Amino acid sequence: MSERVVASIADLAYDDRGLIPAVVQDAESGDVLMVAWMNEEALRRTLDEGRTVFWSRSRKELWRKGETSGNVQHVREVRYDCDADTLLVRVHADGPACHTGRRSCFYRHLEA
Amino acid sequence: MSERVVASIADLAYDDRGLIPAVVQDAESGDVLMVAWMNEEALRRTLDEGRTVFWSRSRKELWRKGETSGNVQHVREVRYDCDADTLLVRVHADGPACHTGRRSCFYRHLEA
Repeated sequence: MSERVVASIADLAYDDRGLIPAVVQDAESGDVLMVAWMNEEALRRTLDEGRTVFWSRSRKELWRKGETSGNVQHVREVRYDCDADTLLVRVHADGPACHTGRRSCFYRHLEA
Repeated sequence: MSERVVASIADLAYDDRGLIPAVVQDAESGDVLMVAWMNEEALRRTLDEGRTVFWSRSRKELWRKGETSGNVQHVREVRYDCDADTLLVRVHADGPACHTGRRSCFYRHLEA
């Protein structure tokens, strides 16, 4: 029943690329909006600025969510899991999370 | 505004280890319970059996959630995101998701 104890954000279990996945959830509706990745700097800025900042794996740069679209995600709280290798960021979203204009990126279903 | 079209589960965007992250959400409460990983076989079994099956990265084997604990997660639906590189599995959980006995693995907070 081990738990990883985290005294600072440097102690989180980043992967071998220095990244940790962040699940973004709408704090009001409970909808899961998107999953993106953070490095330590992105997480530090997210906490400092109170809005989500991610690491873009394709562009290899920090990505302030809403910088161009205006669809800022205001952070209500950041949780981490028992293994300290995943974040849950609960937000108030000014607009759609998805680049397709949908509120959530999870708008399609797999059939059993 | 690209979207990745998925005709079958083989078309999902697995990472270079053949894995895709799965966010598990309580379908009734909306709580995010845990994040784990699936390979194509785990996802196929999840869809076939109607309960979550993951790939354990530490043990390097399939892991039928609840096999020993009895805390089975019954699948209500499986969604995938716009990039087809993350799953959202909405479940009815028979018991706690977390190995610590807590309902959700995300029971701790980071301070800003």
